[in-house]
Amino acid sequence: MGSTRARIAIDAMGGDHAPAEIVAGALRAREELDVEVLLVGDEPQIQSFLGQHTSSFPLEIVPAEGTIEMHEEPLSGLKRKPKASINVAMDLVKQKRADAVVSAGHSGAAMAAALLRLGRLRGIDRPAIGAVFPTILAGKSVLILDVGANVDCRPKFLEQFAVMGSIYSEYVLGVSEPKVGLLNIGEEPSKGNDLAIRTHEMLENNPKISFIGNAEGRDVLSGRFDVIVCDGFAGNVLLKFAEAVGEIMLQILKEELPQGLHGQLGTALLKPNLKRIKQRIDHAEHGGGLLLGVAGICIISHGSSQAPSIFNAIRLAKEAIDNRVLDRIQSSYQKSAAPTADGE
Amino acid sequence: MGSTRARIAIDAMGGDHAPAEIVAGALRAREELDVEVLLVGDEPQIQSFLGQHTSSFPLEIVPAEGTIEMHEEPLSGLKRKPKASINVAMDLVKQKRADAVVSAGHSGAAMAAALLRLGRLRGIDRPAIGAVFPTILAGKSVLILDVGANVDCRPKFLEQFAVMGSIYSEYVLGVSEPKVGLLNIGEEPSKGNDLAIRTHEMLENNPKISFIGNAEGRDVLSGRFDVIVCDGFAGNVLLKFAEAVGEIMLQILKEELPQGLHGQLGTALLKPNLKRIKQRIDHAEHGGGLLLGVAGICIISHGSSQAPSIFNAIRLAKEAIDNRVLDRIQSSYQKSAAPTADGE
Repeated sequence: MGSTRARIAIDAMGGDHAPAEIVAGALRAREELDVEVLLVGDEPQIQSFLGQHTSSFPLEIVPAEGTIEMHEEPLSGLKRKPKASINVAMDLVKQKRADAVVSAGHSGAAMAAALLRLGRLRGIDRPAIGAVFPTILAGKSVLILDVGANVDCRPKFLEQFAVMGSIYSEYVLGVSEPKVGLLNIGEEPSKGNDLAIRTHEMLENNPKISFIGNAEGRDVLSGRFDVIVCDGFAGNVLLKFAEAVGEIMLQILKEELPQGLHGQLGTALLKPNLKRIKQRIDHAEHGGGLLLGVAGICIISHGSSQAPSIFNAIRLAKEAIDNRVLDRIQSSYQKSAAPTADGE
Repeated sequence: MGSTRARIAIDAMGGDHAPAEIVAGALRAREELDVEVLLVGDEPQIQSFLGQHTSSFPLEIVPAEGTIEMHEEPLSGLKRKPKASINVAMDLVKQKRADAVVSAGHSGAAMAAALLRLGRLRGIDRPAIGAVFPTILAGKSVLILDVGANVDCRPKFLEQFAVMGSIYSEYVLGVSEPKVGLLNIGEEPSKGNDLAIRTHEMLENNPKISFIGNAEGRDVLSGRFDVIVCDGFAGNVLLKFAEAVGEIMLQILKEELPQGLHGQLGTALLKPNLKRIKQRIDHAEHGGGLLLGVAGICIISHGSSQAPSIFNAIRLAKEAIDNRVLDRIQSSYQKSAAPTADGE
């Protein structure tokens, strides 16, 4: 992996609050984390947001031209703009000048750029996007994948997601022996659609993971599971629903709590407690999704990311680099390719 | 439809709180709604919960023996216990002694009993379970179907769900020109899995419904849609997730709000407002799912239903009967069977 210090290329032009919040998150990472930061994008703009900070080591600006807009079709956009920030960021990884990419831009474009410029890991049929959800147990989260890269899946794709998710959960999120579940509509192995039934059997027989059974919708946030696999259709619906529900709950609180005189007084008294509630619910606190299965570490942050999310995304990328997640996934699949593989 | 007053058969033995809460809900319906109630189940038990109330018209006890337990496999259970309460309740509809069934028992058993004893409506390939979700707009709800009857769907099933859901939304939930959406992972018609892409085209060309496009996970509770169709796998995951999230939010409030002295005082002041929040979130307020597409009106209530939910379910059943939902679905499909169908 080259130098020992993690080098992270950041798409400074991607996201609703780019480049201001992206630059702010990167500056904080330079202060607080032991990382090298490469800000990829329009140099004058990035420079203006750096303000009195200079672009001195370990922070560097790498020039790029333009970005893929949210309404653009990813593949044609990437082709038309070879020097777009996300293309340049991926190239830095390809050229081994960086170890990871963080982007809050067009997620489809980030995925396509990763596939085109970095390619897949050997043994992986489809990369997956993983998202970390908070659970009801304070401090415990669950990794759900895929949340949108693959809408039509085969059982072996989900099996690969389970293996990659376990490695990520263990070596980046710090969970020992992550418990893996399969998103399904009932507890019994015989439950579910064709994909779920066939996947269940494969997961049960896979010695690389600790599969503990089906996870129903009600179990997702229970804290019983560390990793839950599903096709990208169900996962994406769940992710967007969960994000919206959090916002809806906060809005209902905002509407109903201060009603009446007692309500206003009570709400004022509860200010610090409400802030804590917001933190437990808010997805922005949780960094970003990550693209697993491509030959590089890519963190795909939410389009609405502000500095704290970008900082968290950089932290995740650093963990993934320091803990050699790619090597581990790759060697896991080299082992499995051997015809005599007999478990671990 | 026989007499003009709606006659509703209630599975008195089904659900976690049967028969006490079922009987209590039925008694309230007798008081407040213009319905005839047939309580189906163990006569001495039902009688004991009636207490000082008598089983006089318009409330009648119809004896049955046993119930299908939650762990039982529906088909074999129904076969082994021909006189189980859910079987007897369905037979009442078949014999035209009742117009609808309400059950909080084993939902798979209720669905199987309905299919076996009543059959499907002509033109309907698969019945669907619909569930009513609250939305962020106070007083506005959204009907999601299917939430679990059909895990593997074809586009024409989803099209039928859309037509049945629209009729139910209009004539039972009182929405004029219900706006129909397709659960999907993006706004564009080209987005989604194979099922979604093919269904999108069919819905767009169906003159019986007001299809307004794809509904992403974040749109489900936005209030923009009155009916959202999906396969029973995604729908079931969403339903169970939504129920759990509501409970989780209430638990987070319970844990965090009263912390500290200010917290305790503030929480005490907010008691009435918190009660209102609970009502907006709580699924129990919303009655029950309904089975659409079988030749009878069947309301499938949540297993945890207590008297208010049962009362709401009976109210829903009455609306469905009074507004001739079955006739409307049936005639909608007779029209569509004609090769010259030209809209409406």
